[in-house]
Amino acid sequence: MTATPVALDAVPGLRWSPRGYAALSGPLYELAGSLQARFDELAATWAAAPMAFPPFLAVTELQRIDYFGSFPHLASFAVHLDGDEDEMARFAAAPLAADGSAALTSLAPAHEVLTPAACYHLYVHFQGSALAEARYLTTTATCYRREAYYRPLERQWAFTMREVVAMGTGEEVRLFLARAREEVDGLAAAAGLPVRWVRATDPFFRPSTNPQYLMQRIDPTKHELAYGDGLAIGSINLHHDHFGRAFSIEREGIPATTGCVAFGVERWLAAIVREHGPEAENWPDLNGGTDG
Amino acid sequence: MTATPVALDAVPGLRWSPRGYAALSGPLYELAGSLQARFDELAATWAAAPMAFPPFLAVTELQRIDYFGSFPHLASFAVHLDGDEDEMARFAAAPLAADGSAALTSLAPAHEVLTPAACYHLYVHFQGSALAEARYLTTTATCYRREAYYRPLERQWAFTMREVVAMGTGEEVRLFLARAREEVDGLAAAAGLPVRWVRATDPFFRPSTNPQYLMQRIDPTKHELAYGDGLAIGSINLHHDHFGRAFSIEREGIPATTGCVAFGVERWLAAIVREHGPEAENWPDLNGGTDG
Repeated sequence: MTATPVALDAVPGLRWSPRGYAALSGPLYELAGSLQARFDELAATWAAAPMAFPPFLAVTELQRIDYFGSFPHLASFAVHLDGDEDEMARFAAAPLAADGSAALTSLAPAHEVLTPAACYHLYVHFQGSALAEARYLTTTATCYRREAYYRPLERQWAFTMREVVAMGTGEEVRLFLARAREEVDGLAAAAGLPVRWVRATDPFFRPSTNPQYLMQRIDPTKHELAYGDGLAIGSINLHHDHFGRAFSIEREGIPATTGCVAFGVERWLAAIVREHGPEAENWPDLNGGTDG
Repeated sequence: MTATPVALDAVPGLRWSPRGYAALSGPLYELAGSLQARFDELAATWAAAPMAFPPFLAVTELQRIDYFGSFPHLASFAVHLDGDEDEMARFAAAPLAADGSAALTSLAPAHEVLTPAACYHLYVHFQGSALAEARYLTTTATCYRREAYYRPLERQWAFTMREVVAMGTGEEVRLFLARAREEVDGLAAAAGLPVRWVRATDPFFRPSTNPQYLMQRIDPTKHELAYGDGLAIGSINLHHDHFGRAFSIEREGIPATTGCVAFGVERWLAAIVREHGPEAENWPDLNGGTDG
């Protein structure tokens, strides 16, 4: 890390809203593109098929994995006024409340959650399938997590998550995750980032009462790639048959095992800026090369 | 158009939710990428600087252009539960209402609108600037518009909008729009799409009472690129000093003129599939070539 801490909200090309979101331009925008190209290379290790998903998931789908029981505090929803024209006219005449928020007095029922994690889309997509072979997939999503506080690039309400996901037998997924870990190590080295792998748990609501949290403590299935004082810039996750069972995805006659490698794109930007400074000329060249 | 209408929800690689959103994979995903590469080429005509924006705009920013007065029926908002832990626990225990929607009884104030049009971000970004020269910018955004009905790729709640925007003097923007129109004609020809330009108006709420709508009727500032029976796959828009004035962007000492060329990416997919059929082998090759 550079000797003097970098004020991330003063990095050229970053415009930060304290409510938890950022705009990127210039070298920072280009760096995000170069990182995505490296993640593309990593995904090509398994010829992972790219997919583009909508920005939401149906609440009924997330209910299958008790998402709202485990993470109600993180969830964001997409809503709109109900269809009544008089209500529209009333809102049009006085759209803002005294605190500058939208005066949403009459909402249509909320059926959609703003994506909390990119890979959820894939389990929904493949629900009800019997997989004749292991499937490798990749997707990028804007993800949403409400937090107690925000920091530019490091902890945002809305951020960019890139994932590569495997669905298969337990052995297929374990091989995928082992190889992914090696590839991620190479990528961190190419970015000049000193990192370490640490056991981690997901940020459950009231964790001590949640069996899923207790299971993660007993059987560590999440490992985070930590930079500096512990900024998790990526993770490797073994879900066992949690999603295979919830979404009836089968492999060899039993619920499929799934696993994923996930990258927080803005956090990679933060780590590179913290490590190499705010000037783009000092950043590692991530274009074109291949790494271990 | 093909003699037999194509059922868009049966196109390989499209998964459609009747609530207005789609997932893309396979050839359709690749085609969206090829189109974006062509839009990149078009943006390069003016060396337009790319930017990536957050998924929302502050309601206070959109209020400056009376967005909610003009389009309350289209707006979507990002919301979350309020921070009270008891409320979280209550929601966690019973997250769904009887109709399968989320039981959002206690929401934090909604300060963010899900992006209604990609270019709005740019006027917010440049607010308060005096431009020493014309600025050309480009961005892609997932945009949200509530509609009375939806159709796969053609009319979605959430869709992908690519824009190239100019800010400058009236003359600079008029030259930009004239050149953009030629370039778009070339792009439509490269995609093998028979199109025509038609005068259009924005879909105002209660249009006959809205001075902005009446002004668009008197002084047509929006022209849509129409395919087939009238599917607007792009548009060219002259905003005069509407945004320059609202966001205090100046050029040569007076409010800047702005203009944009916008593409609905999913609608281009729809037009190509309707024109050339659902099989990717019959689609035009959009990679690598240059066009008029």
